[in-house]
Amino acid sequence: MIRRLAIIGVGLIGGSFALALRRAGAVGEVVGCGRGRANLQRACELGILDRFTQDPAAAVWGADLVLLAVPLGAMRENLAAIAPHLAPDAVVTDGGSVKGSVVADLLALFGAAPAWFVPGHPIAGTERSGADAALADLYDGRCVILTPLAETDAAALARVREAWSRCGAEVCEMSVAHHDEVLAATSHLPHLLAFGLVDSLARMQQEAEIFRYAAGGFRDFTRIASSNPTMWRDICIANRAALERVLDRFADELAELRDAVHRGDGERLLGIFSRAKDARDRYVEGRSS
Amino acid sequence: MIRRLAIIGVGLIGGSFALALRRAGAVGEVVGCGRGRANLQRACELGILDRFTQDPAAAVWGADLVLLAVPLGAMRENLAAIAPHLAPDAVVTDGGSVKGSVVADLLALFGAAPAWFVPGHPIAGTERSGADAALADLYDGRCVILTPLAETDAAALARVREAWSRCGAEVCEMSVAHHDEVLAATSHLPHLLAFGLVDSLARMQQEAEIFRYAAGGFRDFTRIASSNPTMWRDICIANRAALERVLDRFADELAELRDAVHRGDGERLLGIFSRAKDARDRYVEGRSS
Repeated sequence: MIRRLAIIGVGLIGGSFALALRRAGAVGEVVGCGRGRANLQRACELGILDRFTQDPAAAVWGADLVLLAVPLGAMRENLAAIAPHLAPDAVVTDGGSVKGSVVADLLALFGAAPAWFVPGHPIAGTERSGADAALADLYDGRCVILTPLAETDAAALARVREAWSRCGAEVCEMSVAHHDEVLAATSHLPHLLAFGLVDSLARMQQEAEIFRYAAGGFRDFTRIASSNPTMWRDICIANRAALERVLDRFADELAELRDAVHRGDGERLLGIFSRAKDARDRYVEGRSS
Repeated sequence: MIRRLAIIGVGLIGGSFALALRRAGAVGEVVGCGRGRANLQRACELGILDRFTQDPAAAVWGADLVLLAVPLGAMRENLAAIAPHLAPDAVVTDGGSVKGSVVADLLALFGAAPAWFVPGHPIAGTERSGADAALADLYDGRCVILTPLAETDAAALARVREAWSRCGAEVCEMSVAHHDEVLAATSHLPHLLAFGLVDSLARMQQEAEIFRYAAGGFRDFTRIASSNPTMWRDICIANRAALERVLDRFADELAELRDAVHRGDGERLLGIFSRAKDARDRYVEGRSS
């Protein structure tokens, strides 16, 4: 049971965490903090928050669990703001899509990773944002990856794990580096490709007409290009080393496809398409989440 | 009113055409033809067909409208098989995703485009295939592009236009070359990218684990990679000239993104992401279809 939860950044991720914990009866009071006053007021109306403040130091006062659900570019300043004001038993976790940069923020601020911080990342989300996008069932059956460090307190880790489990999520652990590699491949690269494709078409002449003839497949394929550009800029910069590696791998794949198209090599295309369909049907479509 | 409709290739496109015309009360008898006997029997059970044959020549006997809904690679042989057996008033149209290759088939077979053939392409579909995937409302509000040639009979064009309108579709006309350019950008390239991305991840070590951490955005982004590989091989080969041009344009975009990631140039990434989000929100998300 969480006595008082502080959510720094009350958007899709933070708001859904509060709603899911409330649904489970696992939280007492929820205090929110963020930059947009209207969004915080809306979060109170939606039952996500009991109260809010725009001062991070005040928000964490007396909280036993703190979730940092702010853009990666705002992690460091928020960590610096809350650290001196945490309760002695407080555990802090985050929802950042890149873990290496959060750990770098910890090291820069504190010299070493504090025992009370558990780096985390729920693998869930939509292209929408803000408190209005929050859903009590967002995490049902979804993976939440925790990337504890050698310095992380075992009891702190257990408390964060328990909170995500109560949200309906499946919790797993891996190293910071492995997390950032996997997410570069399955999330950051696809977002880059979707943004890149839409931008490439938007640069064409008669762009309105081009998009007019896009079917449902195009809408699905490019849905993630409606995501928040600032958040994704932060993610791409924060995970640039791993992202570069998967980008290079994909550029090789694209060159192979282009060569096969150029040569009219149907067998090579069929081989690639069949492997891809098999992999997707096996690993992605059949999954429950 | 269509007296007798012949559907050559009773899958998602052909089956949905028949169901939509039946829904509108716009068709008398529907005769199907295809290679898979079980699929044709299933199409009869589903009320798509009244009867079937596996002989294209017999299928078109006495039909006043014929839809060729076979893979692009099978267009020529089917055109050759049906042409000598068409009724004097028969109009033939097709649902091929590339129009240049269908016109090339016509020229190769007949020396010139026959007056009775109206090249067409419904911009609709899902990653599923076969008669079981057919839907009476697949074409509701969707664009159907007709690409009539100088030789095309005006009355034949009017009959095909009317049939698609009765299916609930919005019919428009453009040139063969323009169709193939637009579809290369909005459909063929996205499919190539989705197949390429999934294949690229499937080649990584620990592929099962990689896919395990893919979220809903990845599932949407790669849905089209579950499409029929043979059909998409045919499309990419049939439209290779236009596809190469958009592939090159996209490769330039990708190189720009990679350079921005490499340099940590957040402003450039934000510019690209913002333009893409604006274009998608404006042109794609708001559309009714």
